[in-house]
Amino acid sequence: MDSLEGSSNGSSNPIETRGKVITCKAAVVWGPKQPFVIEEIQVHPPQKLEVRIKILYTCICHTDLSAWKGENETQAIYPRILGHEAVGIVESVGEGVNDMQEGDKVVPIFNGECQECIYCKSDKTNLCEKFRVNPFKSVMHSDGKTRFTTRDGSQPIYHFLNTSTFSEYSVLDSACLVKIGSDAPLKMMTLLSCGVSTGVGAAWNTADVQKGSSLAVFGLGSVGLAVAEGARSRGASRIIGVDINPSKFLKGVSMGVTDFINPMDSGKPVHEKIREMTGGKGVDYSFECTGNIDALREAFVSTHDGWGLTVVLGIHPTPKMMPLHPMELFDGRKIVASVFGDFKGKSQLPKFADDCINGVVKLDGFITHEFPFAEINEAFSLLMKGESLRCLLQF
Amino acid sequence: MDSLEGSSNGSSNPIETRGKVITCKAAVVWGPKQPFVIEEIQVHPPQKLEVRIKILYTCICHTDLSAWKGENETQAIYPRILGHEAVGIVESVGEGVNDMQEGDKVVPIFNGECQECIYCKSDKTNLCEKFRVNPFKSVMHSDGKTRFTTRDGSQPIYHFLNTSTFSEYSVLDSACLVKIGSDAPLKMMTLLSCGVSTGVGAAWNTADVQKGSSLAVFGLGSVGLAVAEGARSRGASRIIGVDINPSKFLKGVSMGVTDFINPMDSGKPVHEKIREMTGGKGVDYSFECTGNIDALREAFVSTHDGWGLTVVLGIHPTPKMMPLHPMELFDGRKIVASVFGDFKGKSQLPKFADDCINGVVKLDGFITHEFPFAEINEAFSLLMKGESLRCLLQF
Repeated sequence: MDSLEGSSNGSSNPIETRGKVITCKAAVVWGPKQPFVIEEIQVHPPQKLEVRIKILYTCICHTDLSAWKGENETQAIYPRILGHEAVGIVESVGEGVNDMQEGDKVVPIFNGECQECIYCKSDKTNLCEKFRVNPFKSVMHSDGKTRFTTRDGSQPIYHFLNTSTFSEYSVLDSACLVKIGSDAPLKMMTLLSCGVSTGVGAAWNTADVQKGSSLAVFGLGSVGLAVAEGARSRGASRIIGVDINPSKFLKGVSMGVTDFINPMDSGKPVHEKIREMTGGKGVDYSFECTGNIDALREAFVSTHDGWGLTVVLGIHPTPKMMPLHPMELFDGRKIVASVFGDFKGKSQLPKFADDCINGVVKLDGFITHEFPFAEINEAFSLLMKGESLRCLLQF
Repeated sequence: MDSLEGSSNGSSNPIETRGKVITCKAAVVWGPKQPFVIEEIQVHPPQKLEVRIKILYTCICHTDLSAWKGENETQAIYPRILGHEAVGIVESVGEGVNDMQEGDKVVPIFNGECQECIYCKSDKTNLCEKFRVNPFKSVMHSDGKTRFTTRDGSQPIYHFLNTSTFSEYSVLDSACLVKIGSDAPLKMMTLLSCGVSTGVGAAWNTADVQKGSSLAVFGLGSVGLAVAEGARSRGASRIIGVDINPSKFLKGVSMGVTDFINPMDSGKPVHEKIREMTGGKGVDYSFECTGNIDALREAFVSTHDGWGLTVVLGIHPTPKMMPLHPMELFDGRKIVASVFGDFKGKSQLPKFADDCINGVVKLDGFITHEFPFAEINEAFSLLMKGESLRCLLQF
């Protein structure tokens, strides 16, 4: 197979690269907590039902951070290309891809939608049989191989979350790409790949937040703030933000947060504070966006008996079981988890993109920093320090 | 206040008894696990929004058994009159009761419906603010006192579950009584007070079992068999019964159970067996009717990922937390509890009674024994031995 050099300057022409191996730059992780190495790699052509895209922008999410630390991994899979929030442009398509063509603007989704399996055909789930979120998956679905190799072609480089966007080019299954309008604001669209869709969707689809209702959001990172923004857009009247980092509180105001609780300051359990703030009864909904098991319990008991719904969004890596007693369910409180905000990506994200563009939800505050792609290690440091929401990396 | 003697022969006339204390027989429990004592007691007139009824038939349920054993009790409340499944006839009504009159046939419900509180006005719950199920409640709502005293009037006798039907007469809040048709089959109607409504309602209202779907029922007592019957009436295609008592299996066939698993025989975890029986994927719904925490986990992991719903109906008295990890929720399995089958009693039970009378659900197999009321201790022995479903006691 021919290899094309020099495409890493971003000027490649699909006609020149189609069907060929592209050599370009990527941020490769060689081991847990090892700094990203910006190096040249080979990106092989898309196979059947796959698409090769040129990444224009990518963001960093906590799930990238967890993977970088090697959390949730049953075995080390390295070298690997992380990253799953991005926007790109189709460079070439594999056999059988009919819904996208070269030049289309696309958003990668880690929770794909084949639109053919029993799950995709059910209106009760957005977990595709083949392309659902799977942090352990590291190869392509069709042949169990990678489309990335080292510069000399000698060693496979593994994929991540169906996406691997920390690279100038990536290959994805077409089920994991959503086409957006040619005039869509590209930087903003990166937010649709994960955090904002997850948070807004949890409020809209999973909880179906009603006008005039109350909620508490535990953890005001991007996902938690997106929950608030989604609830604000639905007309919730009371949005209580809970976070140990007071700097998140200022940010939350523009996403509709009406009240704040810092668990370190309140002097009593958060659920008691929340009940005091809501006439003794608790909130209609709570959203657990921390991955902390104690926060999960606080979120659960903070809700109104009879109909309170807790939506779990945080990743809980410890082996600790849920600290809930079965009899507590008889008070009518419910607890569910939400993946990708219960959006079916390919079917429902185009409409959601329009909602974002039209200002139904406001995404202005989510991208707090922009860096050149080469400064990815610095961008990770910011996230670890809790100083950024989304940091955009520009190729 | 005048007292009327001799009403215990069942020939009392409301005109003679209205407004007076009635002396009649009841089965009184004087301490945990103490035999029921059939003795004369005083039943005082109904106060505002209360109704005094003459019990015609009553049944025994496992919740009576738990209370008799003193389980779930924070403190001993004795003497007490248990019993909550029954059918009766209105003897007299207190001030403000407009929806019932003397002579009406009624079914007591332990999970009342005041129809005025925020819970009753919500379509998301059937837990009334004042009259929801509460095993610790032992007095009337209005004045915190009992309407029962000992024969000599010297000592209060406490109420149970808003109902106390192990007595010839009882006083209930009108929120805890449902009027039924004058020609309704009375013995069958006792089943509506608890077990059958709970089971059928869990299938209909809580799970909304769909035609052609599959389910597993853990525990084939009255509630579990009522779940099966409810699912059968909805057209479920596969109803797997799980019980360690093989004699329950024969019974289940007429309630629509299609397959049986005895956990003692299967040689592998029940969920593995269920997955084998369902193409590797599990059932659409599972119902936990045992109160066993290990069965709860088996029920949860027996369901189909993406949309499996586990409904908890069993009473779990141990302090053990739910053996579920928060990340397991991300597979799209849900778990909820159901109280009184999510029926709003006063609003929805009349229609359900019609469904039972019209054969939409078949209740023929549930009453397995009939005893005179005086043989209540023998009836309890049968239930403890697992030899009866519902044992009807006749006054």
